Amino acid sequence: MLLEQIEKENDIKKIAKEDYDALAEEIRQFLIEKISVTGGHLGSNLGAVELTMALHLALDLPGDKIIWDVGHQSYTHKLLTGRREGFTSLRKFHGMSGFPKRKESDCDCFDTGHSSTSISAGLGLVKARDLKGEQNTIVSVIGDGSLTGGMAYEALNNASRLDTNFIVILNDNNMSISENVGGISSYLNNVRTANSYLDLKEGVHKALGNSNRGNSLVAKIRKIKSGVKSLVIPGMFFEDMGITYLGPVNGHDINSLVKVIKEAQRVKGPVMIHVITEKGKGYVPAERHPARFHGAEPFEIETGLPKNPRTTANYTDIFSTVMCKLGQRNEKVVAITAAMPDGTGLKRFRNMYPDRFFDVGIAEEHAVTFAAGLAAGGMKPVVAIYSSFLQRAYDQILHDVCIQNLPVVFALDRAGLVGSDGETHQGIFDLSYLSCIPGMHIMAPKNKWELSDMLKFAVDFDGPMAIRYPRGEAYAGLKGYREPIVYGKSEWIYEEADIALLAVGSMVKTAEEVRLKLKEAGYACSLVNARFVKPIDEEMVKKAAAGHKLIVTLEENVASGGFGEKVRNCLDSHKLANNLLSVHIPDAYVEHGSVDLLKKEIGMDAESIFEQIKKCMA
Amino acid sequence: MLLEQIEKENDIKKIAKEDYDALAEEIRQFLIEKISVTGGHLGSNLGAVELTMALHLALDLPGDKIIWDVGHQSYTHKLLTGRREGFTSLRKFHGMSGFPKRKESDCDCFDTGHSSTSISAGLGLVKARDLKGEQNTIVSVIGDGSLTGGMAYEALNNASRLDTNFIVILNDNNMSISENVGGISSYLNNVRTANSYLDLKEGVHKALGNSNRGNSLVAKIRKIKSGVKSLVIPGMFFEDMGITYLGPVNGHDINSLVKVIKEAQRVKGPVMIHVITEKGKGYVPAERHPARFHGAEPFEIETGLPKNPRTTANYTDIFSTVMCKLGQRNEKVVAITAAMPDGTGLKRFRNMYPDRFFDVGIAEEHAVTFAAGLAAGGMKPVVAIYSSFLQRAYDQILHDVCIQNLPVVFALDRAGLVGSDGETHQGIFDLSYLSCIPGMHIMAPKNKWELSDMLKFAVDFDGPMAIRYPRGEAYAGLKGYREPIVYGKSEWIYEEADIALLAVGSMVKTAEEVRLKLKEAGYACSLVNARFVKPIDEEMVKKAAAGHKLIVTLEENVASGGFGEKVRNCLDSHKLANNLLSVHIPDAYVEHGSVDLLKKEIGMDAESIFEQIKKCMA
Repeated sequence: MLLEQIEKENDIKKIAKEDYDALAEEIRQFLIEKISVTGGHLGSNLGAVELTMALHLALDLPGDKIIWDVGHQSYTHKLLTGRREGFTSLRKFHGMSGFPKRKESDCDCFDTGHSSTSISAGLGLVKARDLKGEQNTIVSVIGDGSLTGGMAYEALNNASRLDTNFIVILNDNNMSISENVGGISSYLNNVRTANSYLDLKEGVHKALGNSNRGNSLVAKIRKIKSGVKSLVIPGMFFEDMGITYLGPVNGHDINSLVKVIKEAQRVKGPVMIHVITEKGKGYVPAERHPARFHGAEPFEIETGLPKNPRTTANYTDIFSTVMCKLGQRNEKVVAITAAMPDGTGLKRFRNMYPDRFFDVGIAEEHAVTFAAGLAAGGMKPVVAIYSSFLQRAYDQILHDVCIQNLPVVFALDRAGLVGSDGETHQGIFDLSYLSCIPGMHIMAPKNKWELSDMLKFAVDFDGPMAIRYPRGEAYAGLKGYREPIVYGKSEWIYEEADIALLAVGSMVKTAEEVRLKLKEAGYACSLVNARFVKPIDEEMVKKAAAGHKLIVTLEENVASGGFGEKVRNCLDSHKLANNLLSVHIPDAYVEHGSVDLLKKEIGMDAESIFEQIKKCMA
Repeated sequence: MLLEQIEKENDIKKIAKEDYDALAEEIRQFLIEKISVTGGHLGSNLGAVELTMALHLALDLPGDKIIWDVGHQSYTHKLLTGRREGFTSLRKFHGMSGFPKRKESDCDCFDTGHSSTSISAGLGLVKARDLKGEQNTIVSVIGDGSLTGGMAYEALNNASRLDTNFIVILNDNNMSISENVGGISSYLNNVRTANSYLDLKEGVHKALGNSNRGNSLVAKIRKIKSGVKSLVIPGMFFEDMGITYLGPVNGHDINSLVKVIKEAQRVKGPVMIHVITEKGKGYVPAERHPARFHGAEPFEIETGLPKNPRTTANYTDIFSTVMCKLGQRNEKVVAITAAMPDGTGLKRFRNMYPDRFFDVGIAEEHAVTFAAGLAAGGMKPVVAIYSSFLQRAYDQILHDVCIQNLPVVFALDRAGLVGSDGETHQGIFDLSYLSCIPGMHIMAPKNKWELSDMLKFAVDFDGPMAIRYPRGEAYAGLKGYREPIVYGKSEWIYEEADIALLAVGSMVKTAEEVRLKLKEAGYACSLVNARFVKPIDEEMVKKAAAGHKLIVTLEENVASGGFGEKVRNCLDSHKLANNLLSVHIPDAYVEHGSVDLLKKEIGMDAESIFEQIKKCMA
């Protein structure tokens, strides 16, 4: 095994040149085997094997720095920096993260997780390097999907002013998680088919019979009028911004990649190397089904099929189905996703109502203000964005939707703990960051039927409305409890005495379990499904205070600005007895791992909550 | 007066063509006179007079729609849509807003205030129009400064896919509020000097002696290989994205503007009209001092000098001075602004330490992640962004700075009520949106000396730290109270009994006034300067609870997630008597007007607070 010779960074340099392809093959097999067991990001990693090897061959880590945009393509980088053993515990609790983490290795220089940040971070490292008078090479690797995010462009606009070395590698597989969209994508398509940069230089060299003269001619071509230049050099779009463009280069040809990276290191100023890769390269099922193998569950290597196929619907499925119904019922309903037609479940809506479906690319800011425009034009937009990604559009929610009181529905999937993606993806802040916005409304469903009812309610509602629901299986309990949704009203599921459990969304299920334990222990116990987090149901809180010794709030959100604080304020403002236990996510980042394990760890599983309540009642 | 003939939208069409220039002149004089009295945005409005007239001549409002990016250049639009009288009360309480407001006129189709939103909103209106089967023209007007904001690019990337009419007007004055920066800016500089589009077409027409053949030749040129095309057509950058480019056009030549707008209406697909304007056009002081006349205080028309020159320092001045000192003391200190070297006070730092100063353009997202990169590289970045604009970088604060616990200092100017800019600019959410982020720390100074002390403390602190301070005069009271800043500790200013006033930052001054009134009314009264909002000083809260009958929290922030809730939670978690009055901004958008008037309106002036406290004590 060649891979076994690589125990730490730079060990790859000991591998013989003629063994590079064999090593790439070994890495691919390793990744497929490991990820087939643990699950994880497969397609993006298979696409970046040679690129990562080339970077490690050309650079000297950890002095030189690589910033991986999003970071889900950093597995080969982890392998080449002494973390082979970590793949057994990949994305498991206390195991190796699926993203770059500074605390994991000196070779991870910047944590990523969300899209389009790498050029900004790289520029920061470049400026720090220059101020310190150091000389190392800094490379930001960004996908063409991430390039649809506005902040990448803000960064490129700033990079153009550099008179110092900085390399951006555009890892272009013509994909976000799903197909890529927009003008830049079409533009890159044209460039992809241009003669490769190395062929061009080769040609010039050959014609002139002298490598130095060849180089200087290419340099001269860059200086002349852009019109002529773009006949010769592809990537004029970037050159227009002031960035030297090298490419396109075959992203699976290690020697060419090393050559072009070394050449880029000699350029003063910002350089973009345009590398063409194939997502899922080398594993047929991943090549064919890029969306499915973006973030894969454990699968059978032979067939590519999941080892444990889902048999129950998750909330995304419910959302998907209801949106199709709503689309049929109301032709004003339009749907918007930021590059996630699969992840959000909007693909079916797209297939049924292509004119009313908009995939805007990885562009959450635009998604929200675009929705505001649609609403101002009389439509009923539903914007489906994961809870942690909606953080990207915070100002747009406040400034473009809520100040104008526009009827935009926000469908926040992955709200609460998300599990194996970890810190960067936990959806545990939305109740807080949305609650403080005047005019915003927030609901959370207890089970699958309620998500459906809430969506219908939201689409008929004349104002901004967010619905947050968790990743994973849709709760199918409490089927009989389906009173119509009434604005600002909670739902009493059980009315007893002693203890009132007031639960938000996903925590209703947990509260059910807690209640059973409490009953066994001899307590009477009411259960309220909050339904609305903003506005909260003050009558419900008053009633809870009147008839119970202890009120317990339960939410998959941090405390500050959350549901518990709202209940506490309500009690206080009515001068009601205030024996309140607030169960919430602690004020800390929650790592990766299964949601069940994580809940136990932070005391939010039924058993821990039961114990807390018993203490309060004692 | 020609202007008097214009009582409502489309009245401009009754003006004879030969009077256009005279009308433009009248509008300019009107704006200069009115703004010299009320204050307001002058430069951007003087630059857009002819462009606005041309739009109103070419379009049919309110059926056709204009979305003004940022919106501070919409004064001529207001004049031409029946709001002449409004200029007397411009930006005053209950008067006319300085920004487009849908509630003000049918001709304002989308509210703006922050930068770079207009293309996204316009696209939404375009799609709504098409789905409704309507035919009106939709125009988004965006400045070249706003084009440095990433979401404008996200929107352009999406616009490129349109096969329907949509016009983007690039109002290019080569300025943000201050000079513009970045690759796109240099690119536009080159394009500006190209032959104008109309000249080009003229030439082709003349050469062929036939207007139709001329048009079709231009169309053919667009279709051919981009290399040749950019020899003939400027704006290839936009054409590469799939957007038809028309320009550059002289933005002060009404007839050319009308012509090119009408031509753009005939193009199917997205069109960008590149209009060259001069900020402050027609008023020499504004032409010469664009930053000062961006948002001007009342001024003498003759000289351009302020009517009431400031004699006292504001917080921005203090920040400016202290940053220069910190820059000298610690060479790791670097400063970042998003296009506001003047507004934030960083201009002096720039002049003293140009290598350590970064103006990234209107690009708050990039600014924050760039700062994170600098911090990861060992620097001590201070990011100065207004409270309401920092909302743009919410995810970057959480995801790029705080998860990695990077020592970035956020200097939040304009925190609290800002006055005449109104709803979109009030900085009344930052305590909430920052508090829920794990690892974030928040301070607010009571007076000018404390801002200085806090900045020094923050720069030495090893983690993310935000300091929020208000617009306007820096409080110079309580000079004698200058105990060193201690992490997480508040400052007891007066220790008495009965009532404890716990005030955050700007509210310490108000609390002083409240306390005097309370003393007069016979109450003993303690006063605490909170200093830290996160973490709050639990010992202080316990002490306040122990020695007082009533605790009053005071903050210029909404309730949800604010300081009052933190104090309440602390009292509750320690099972302390909970007689708390929380004084905060109500859960609603606060309009424009003087800060004093606004505070009275929402019950946050000393008198109202005094009355509330008396009621609680009764």
